[in-house]
Amino acid sequence: MNVMKNKKDTLEKLKNFFDQSFEEETDFILLPEMFNCPYDNTYFREYSENEKNGETLKLLSELSAKYKTYIIGGSVPENDCGKIYNTSFVFDRNGKIIAKHRKIHLFDINIPEIRFMESDVLSPGNNITIFDTEFGKFGVIICYDIRFPELSRIMALEGVKGIFVPAAFNTVTGPAHWDILFRSRAIDNQIFMFGASPARDENFSYNAYGHSLIVNPWGKIIAEFDKKEQFGFFDINLDEINFYREKMPYYNHRRTDIYNIKRTI
Amino acid sequence: MNVMKNKKDTLEKLKNFFDQSFEEETDFILLPEMFNCPYDNTYFREYSENEKNGETLKLLSELSAKYKTYIIGGSVPENDCGKIYNTSFVFDRNGKIIAKHRKIHLFDINIPEIRFMESDVLSPGNNITIFDTEFGKFGVIICYDIRFPELSRIMALEGVKGIFVPAAFNTVTGPAHWDILFRSRAIDNQIFMFGASPARDENFSYNAYGHSLIVNPWGKIIAEFDKKEQFGFFDINLDEINFYREKMPYYNHRRTDIYNIKRTI
Repeated sequence: MNVMKNKKDTLEKLKNFFDQSFEEETDFILLPEMFNCPYDNTYFREYSENEKNGETLKLLSELSAKYKTYIIGGSVPENDCGKIYNTSFVFDRNGKIIAKHRKIHLFDINIPEIRFMESDVLSPGNNITIFDTEFGKFGVIICYDIRFPELSRIMALEGVKGIFVPAAFNTVTGPAHWDILFRSRAIDNQIFMFGASPARDENFSYNAYGHSLIVNPWGKIIAEFDKKEQFGFFDINLDEINFYREKMPYYNHRRTDIYNIKRTI
Repeated sequence: MNVMKNKKDTLEKLKNFFDQSFEEETDFILLPEMFNCPYDNTYFREYSENEKNGETLKLLSELSAKYKTYIIGGSVPENDCGKIYNTSFVFDRNGKIIAKHRKIHLFDINIPEIRFMESDVLSPGNNITIFDTEFGKFGVIICYDIRFPELSRIMALEGVKGIFVPAAFNTVTGPAHWDILFRSRAIDNQIFMFGASPARDENFSYNAYGHSLIVNPWGKIIAEFDKKEQFGFFDINLDEINFYREKMPYYNHRRTDIYNIKRTI
């Protein structure tokens, strides 16, 4: 999605997308990180919403119920008692929030090419987020969270079939690391990875990489957009997880007698 | 290296390489997995050597002392009281063995395209292998070990600047996963990764992928061979580790209050 400076325009666009393009029998809709707010510290507080009465969240709830689809609602600036979080709300097919992930790892970078310190404005989340569906479990992480292999490993060990990642890499980190991070998390854990990025808008301070994608458990990119705004529907076959885990059973060859990875919460 | 069926020919070739092509002030030589033995279960026992009196190990010791270089001796079938291991011996600049890594994760694959069950013949190692040099610490893992992100993470946390990986991916796993595994381990941990593969020999039962490579801490491939036999010398700058860890300090943003990864030995 091309994030609009006027939040109402973004929400209108989202509504139009569903009303005009939604394909029947869709099970999951994934939106990008901070899809209702320019990705810039100066906007997060102003655009933030509370879980109880946010207009963006209200619309996502209505759309998920109307179209009977899960919505992994990208992320929005969440305001909870004055603290701002980068939060992904997950809606079931009836408009109910069944999970929310607050970005655990805040993106702080301070180099000549790019300065962006999320921690100046945002507070970090403290939970690993997994939700259940009729297809099995899925995880949600946000952008920078993907850089920490521990998270996707723990989620896989807890049984997720895929991880949804609203994300906004930039024009430096994107070309260098975007594909490879999604692909390696998929390969290591033999699961699906889904990434959704805002479209690139050269007029904003932060230029998103774009390139929303789906990676299968063999690490193959089975769908990828470019930097422009685009909506799309794709079929995936969750049986590929067991297919590859039988074909090359490294997922079961871990040596927990030598190393182990665990939740500490 | 093109592995010769006659072990003496392989060792002769190795000696010639040093005597004819060795570049002065080289600090590390990395050889491929099972460089002195065709990669086939039917040969491992016959070609195996004991640490105390193996002819391959004797030659590596002599060469490291003569040329004053560390040698990460790829791997060889090691015979220890009748048990066979896939073992990498590391020699210091004086010909002394300072570390040995026995492949922890044995490669078992049984699919229509390829059947290879190392565990039919080999025993697994049980240790994480790190050695110290005047440049800092380095790790050694062998081939299939690279599929387990826990290992490289633990090594990085224990301070290694790079990981040497004698490896022999094949023509199925190589194109799909070789580069990406080396690059993602480098990116995640902001360290160097070094991989050395046997050259491809279509006459053997197992066709190695080749593509020996060096990856820097930003995940960039700074040297890569093709499938043919090739020797080469490359400069790396270990300061890049701190450079990238300052530039993008995700390595220090781990949330051990949420997850942690530990040795269990």
